[in-house]
Amino acid sequence: MTETVHNWEDHGYLATYIQKNGSFANLRIYPHGLVLVDLQSYNDQTKGREETDRLLDKVEERMKELFHGNIKRVKRLPAILRGGAIDRYWPTADGRLVEYDIDEVVYDEDSPFQNIKILHSKQFGNILILSGDVNLAESDLAYTQAIMGSGKENYAGKEVLILGGGDGGILYEIVKLKPKMVTMVEIDQMVIDGCKKYMRKTCGDVLDNLKGECYQVLIEDCIPVLKRYAKEGRMFDYVINDLTAVPISTSPEEDSTWEFLRLILDLSMKVLKQDGKYFTQGNCINLTDALTLYEEQLSRLYCPVEFSKEIVCVPSYMELNSSFCADRQVIQGAGSYGFKP
Amino acid sequence: MTETVHNWEDHGYLATYIQKNGSFANLRIYPHGLVLVDLQSYNDQTKGREETDRLLDKVEERMKELFHGNIKRVKRLPAILRGGAIDRYWPTADGRLVEYDIDEVVYDEDSPFQNIKILHSKQFGNILILSGDVNLAESDLAYTQAIMGSGKENYAGKEVLILGGGDGGILYEIVKLKPKMVTMVEIDQMVIDGCKKYMRKTCGDVLDNLKGECYQVLIEDCIPVLKRYAKEGRMFDYVINDLTAVPISTSPEEDSTWEFLRLILDLSMKVLKQDGKYFTQGNCINLTDALTLYEEQLSRLYCPVEFSKEIVCVPSYMELNSSFCADRQVIQGAGSYGFKP
Repeated sequence: MTETVHNWEDHGYLATYIQKNGSFANLRIYPHGLVLVDLQSYNDQTKGREETDRLLDKVEERMKELFHGNIKRVKRLPAILRGGAIDRYWPTADGRLVEYDIDEVVYDEDSPFQNIKILHSKQFGNILILSGDVNLAESDLAYTQAIMGSGKENYAGKEVLILGGGDGGILYEIVKLKPKMVTMVEIDQMVIDGCKKYMRKTCGDVLDNLKGECYQVLIEDCIPVLKRYAKEGRMFDYVINDLTAVPISTSPEEDSTWEFLRLILDLSMKVLKQDGKYFTQGNCINLTDALTLYEEQLSRLYCPVEFSKEIVCVPSYMELNSSFCADRQVIQGAGSYGFKP
Repeated sequence: MTETVHNWEDHGYLATYIQKNGSFANLRIYPHGLVLVDLQSYNDQTKGREETDRLLDKVEERMKELFHGNIKRVKRLPAILRGGAIDRYWPTADGRLVEYDIDEVVYDEDSPFQNIKILHSKQFGNILILSGDVNLAESDLAYTQAIMGSGKENYAGKEVLILGGGDGGILYEIVKLKPKMVTMVEIDQMVIDGCKKYMRKTCGDVLDNLKGECYQVLIEDCIPVLKRYAKEGRMFDYVINDLTAVPISTSPEEDSTWEFLRLILDLSMKVLKQDGKYFTQGNCINLTDALTLYEEQLSRLYCPVEFSKEIVCVPSYMELNSSFCADRQVIQGAGSYGFKP
């Protein structure tokens, strides 16, 4: 074992211990009494963990002896596994470090639009992760139910438009409720390909064909589709936006994502029947600035809407999430936007 | 900046960079191509984070140049904050590292039985943590509902016994349902003191007095109470065990916790009416060995029971949990255990 020691004048002490097998440890002592010990080893996971635990046990014991038990707090964190084939760390929308119980990479492909990962978690089932963002796990029916109006809506005989929703969860759940017609517009065929194979608890068999008795899936960018429908005067009872979470940036003037969001909102209102409803997901309830800004966008629509918000616990998100519902207000003069009152 | 370099023969390279302000960085390069960069600084949190991010941006940029963009994967993890007054890391029951959005220590006391912390989370409200285990947050009505039978039980006019439950959640919810009498047996007065002050979304005003119209709280060890009730022939329609999670150890013969659990189970069955029900929490569904063992304990009771299991998402647990319900089987010859059939 090689030891290197650095002493600062005012900032304490750092010792680095290097082992022949490639492991090393840092012992950092701060002048106000904080002692941090970090171990890094390259090892078979289980073996490495056990060895590390034994070593830390010894360090802790020795420290307690040295300080005659005069230690206020001892905290040991689980080891962080880096560089392996399986990445278990997918930070939350508000930037907190969380470790998932991921044990298998089921699907990992780059589409023209994004990186698509489907990872298996023992407790959540398969999890869809798009460009690093946890989208939905097979455990997350709560998300789908919330964005459909939490069981309070009657979809029977209704015309429904789903924007995005490539995991098939919303489509699968609505089709069960005997709608007149559901149109889903998803840009990324590869998301559908991955999900129909590996997210079957979420989508059932609904993605096996792009057309069914009461649904169709269009592999298209939803913006031109919405514009076309608006022009044709095609109207829906429900528009469900499952496209993007509320952007994390809070600078709408600098960030085109907010423009995109508003465009989607406005176009959606144009294809929504007078008594129609628009549902969308919010984001982690901690992102209060982004959520407030989103609510402001809602209030600035060409066509005024009333909206409500619901807080939902989505198991795989490891945070509380909000979902939004906007009711078309019955307003005079709405005809100018192409509505069929 | 001081640089110290260590070269292994077969294990790559470690460079340590030490700054005058007390910060330091490790650059560890493994022979198979994994590069790990760790920065440690002692700083005002926000300032430290921004500085670290800027530095890591530079390192990443430089690495990409050096490798001509030939880098397979880059991953940056959120900084870990250690040694502060607020501890944000409370690993899950299955040992995963998770960071909570904790911003305040509301209560932190050692009782004769345990350490009691109540920490404030922006999204979960106040969280009760007993000796390091996340017990319940103000967001976790789902837990209370599950352990009460998920709304499928009729508590009106019933006799209910709660074991533990010092946060007052179960008591508060049952009292609303007009039971005949609820008896809660909690060993730790200080849990009640903390919760009645800081967990009011969970317990309402129910802990303000230890006695109400249809409830009483006994500050006692539940074992002698159960034995007394069994001897007296006092019977309940419901026994709700909110005492301990299924032990994580799976060596019942070496671990007295399992003995304790079985004792509680047996005593509970003795005070349960013929058609009574026993509810308890399970644990993280990933702890399959512990859960299987628990089910085995259930099947080995003196008095045979039928049991069912439900999986519930408790927001603050950041993992899926199971809860158990044991129905007393209507069996012949049960009288020998002191039942009143």
